[in-house]
Amino acid sequence: MAQGQGDYRILHEAALRDYLASVADLKALLGSEPASWSITEVGDGNLNLVFIVKGGQGGVAVKQALPYVRLVGESWPLPLSRAHYEYLALSRQAELAPGLVPALLHHNEALALTVMELLEPHIIMRKGMVAGSQYPRFVDDITTFMARTLFFTSDLALSAAEKKQGIAAFAGNHALCKITEDLIFTDPYRIAEQNRWTTPYLDALAAELRDDMDLHVAISRLKLKFMASPEALLHGDLHTGSIMVTDGETRVIDPEFAFYGPMGFDVGAVLANLLMAYFASAGHERSPGERRAFEHWVLETVEQVWNAFARKFLELWRAGAVGDAYPASLFAGETGAARLEAERQAYMQRLFADTVGFAAAKTIRRIFGLAHNIDFELIEDPRRRAISEARAVRLARMMMLEAGAFPTIADVTAAARKLREWQPEF
Amino acid sequence: MAQGQGDYRILHEAALRDYLASVADLKALLGSEPASWSITEVGDGNLNLVFIVKGGQGGVAVKQALPYVRLVGESWPLPLSRAHYEYLALSRQAELAPGLVPALLHHNEALALTVMELLEPHIIMRKGMVAGSQYPRFVDDITTFMARTLFFTSDLALSAAEKKQGIAAFAGNHALCKITEDLIFTDPYRIAEQNRWTTPYLDALAAELRDDMDLHVAISRLKLKFMASPEALLHGDLHTGSIMVTDGETRVIDPEFAFYGPMGFDVGAVLANLLMAYFASAGHERSPGERRAFEHWVLETVEQVWNAFARKFLELWRAGAVGDAYPASLFAGETGAARLEAERQAYMQRLFADTVGFAAAKTIRRIFGLAHNIDFELIEDPRRRAISEARAVRLARMMMLEAGAFPTIADVTAAARKLREWQPEF
Repeated sequence: MAQGQGDYRILHEAALRDYLASVADLKALLGSEPASWSITEVGDGNLNLVFIVKGGQGGVAVKQALPYVRLVGESWPLPLSRAHYEYLALSRQAELAPGLVPALLHHNEALALTVMELLEPHIIMRKGMVAGSQYPRFVDDITTFMARTLFFTSDLALSAAEKKQGIAAFAGNHALCKITEDLIFTDPYRIAEQNRWTTPYLDALAAELRDDMDLHVAISRLKLKFMASPEALLHGDLHTGSIMVTDGETRVIDPEFAFYGPMGFDVGAVLANLLMAYFASAGHERSPGERRAFEHWVLETVEQVWNAFARKFLELWRAGAVGDAYPASLFAGETGAARLEAERQAYMQRLFADTVGFAAAKTIRRIFGLAHNIDFELIEDPRRRAISEARAVRLARMMMLEAGAFPTIADVTAAARKLREWQPEF
Repeated sequence: MAQGQGDYRILHEAALRDYLASVADLKALLGSEPASWSITEVGDGNLNLVFIVKGGQGGVAVKQALPYVRLVGESWPLPLSRAHYEYLALSRQAELAPGLVPALLHHNEALALTVMELLEPHIIMRKGMVAGSQYPRFVDDITTFMARTLFFTSDLALSAAEKKQGIAAFAGNHALCKITEDLIFTDPYRIAEQNRWTTPYLDALAAELRDDMDLHVAISRLKLKFMASPEALLHGDLHTGSIMVTDGETRVIDPEFAFYGPMGFDVGAVLANLLMAYFASAGHERSPGERRAFEHWVLETVEQVWNAFARKFLELWRAGAVGDAYPASLFAGETGAARLEAERQAYMQRLFADTVGFAAAKTIRRIFGLAHNIDFELIEDPRRRAISEARAVRLARMMMLEAGAFPTIADVTAAARKLREWQPEF
């Protein structure tokens, strides 16, 4: 790190104004007198300060890590180094998936502060989906992002030496990984102070989850895979709250959980959050069937996300497998090519099984763990909310326990469609 | 590193004498006048210089890395940093498996030089096995070594943060991993200048291996697992040439290939080298059945190594699972305990399947790749040698392609016993 940790201080409005004015490029970009810049804190995430700064000429977004978890407070410290890993990940993603992450304008390691392109009029995708909006660019953009960032940081595209360097570069981000390990892979399945759910409706279901030992084995296997399968550089938190959209653009933000992990964790995150939006939709409708077109689009999107991701990933593999895995010299000639293609399909099938499991884990944590999402939270009537949540959990349990029942993504959407009409008994 | 790389120089006899005399502890340990010390170069490995130094009072072993592969020469450079990783691994192994590695006396990072306890009258286990010797301590010692070094560096015993630190600490040893990736997991299955085999008898088999696409898929899956499954700190080269024995003692040496990888690679290495000793034995007998007792002991040892390893590993898991994987809080009560025990058995079954695959890979490389072993090489008659080798390869192919046919170690030894009488057609 260029500057010592001792230089860290939280930059609230006045200090931030002075700081930005001291960086010539940013001052020029913003334009007009610093005193006239508008500075608004907009962070609605769980961890950091986020400011939007607008000057006479342009605007920027400023993100500063706090030395604790914002959602919880100073009692839960969290290392500032996560800003370093976020910057590192954003830089790599910008190379690999140009135009799909915000442009980086400035980074100060000691302040754990990053200045980025202001995304306007983009909104957080999750908010748009709560409102029932459809995003025509989403499938193509998110699958390009995932296929390229995952493929090009995997053993299929890198030498083993390059891969190990990447793993080591992100190994220090373990405090952020630990949050995932605890909040996604452990706490929802045991009594934990921070758990919460829509009570009293889901009380029985919460108790079932704590007692279901098959589920505990399944989540523990997924946790082990999360900890010990550095397949590729993951975003690490790829939910619809980490994606900003307009009708014509998609930007993936906030990769502070980045590390080398199992690819299915990122892909599963996207699918899980779409499926939750689907089940939440019933809770947002003011008249029966009002959001049918939206719901149809969401399930179609679930299918397309997997199918387009798999297609693009395979295209990259066929075109540019210069990594140390599956060396071309072992698959020469027509027979070799055919056998390698069959193995590529088998590889994607294994990745799909992982994806299904991780999607299930991501769903359950949003309904029984610490961090919930507004898809469900904004359903005001707790009974209606619980109905949507129970449907999502029922699908998630099947996905985690009966992976074999979901050989294709169409099996997942078919099960979701069926559950849309299921009435849980409370 | 304490000293710069620029300080490196190869220490031949005179320089080594001066160097050892300059280290007070070593001088005292050796005793008498440095000029009277006997210094003998004994390295018969593929990579380094090894000296035995004896003074009036005691002796030491000195190992110095060369900046190239000794077996090949200066045309194949190899980083000196491997001495650092060897030292790091030896230190960790000494903590985890006391008495089963040579005591460390001195390390000089810049010289890539380590001074260790002189093991006397220990001999390289492989040499003893060629002579038909049995080692009554071997099973207990090697299984303690493997169970403890693998368990205590795994996610079952470590926090995810500690584990990631360990992975990062060994990530720089990629040049040694690359040797394994090339020589074990790639070259024997394609035309490669350095390949060799017992010609002409095995020519057809070598060609078959190069054409067998199912085998190429299987070896590629194993290679990917080797590269991207950091389950535990491996020795990385755990063959019978890395084990020194007497009737009463066992010492594991030479962990310069150490890195975080799949546990089955170490366990498979031990089993493969025992199985090769078994098949080689027929080539060493001067009269039919002469080595029957030895061969019986070897197959019994194969079974006992897996069974005792699995038992000890499970005992450690049951007694001290303080790592982040399979958290105790998810398996509370009697039901939880029973379900976790079933999962432990399933875990060992998965590890056994990996072990079978890696054992097969280690066998094939010794018969068709660059580095052979004296078990086979010392069979002077090439036809008899080829018969032994063909039997080993036939078992290895079955193990790699039909893992399901070997649910237990007894299935492996039964197949080996059968093949002992098989006469390949040349």
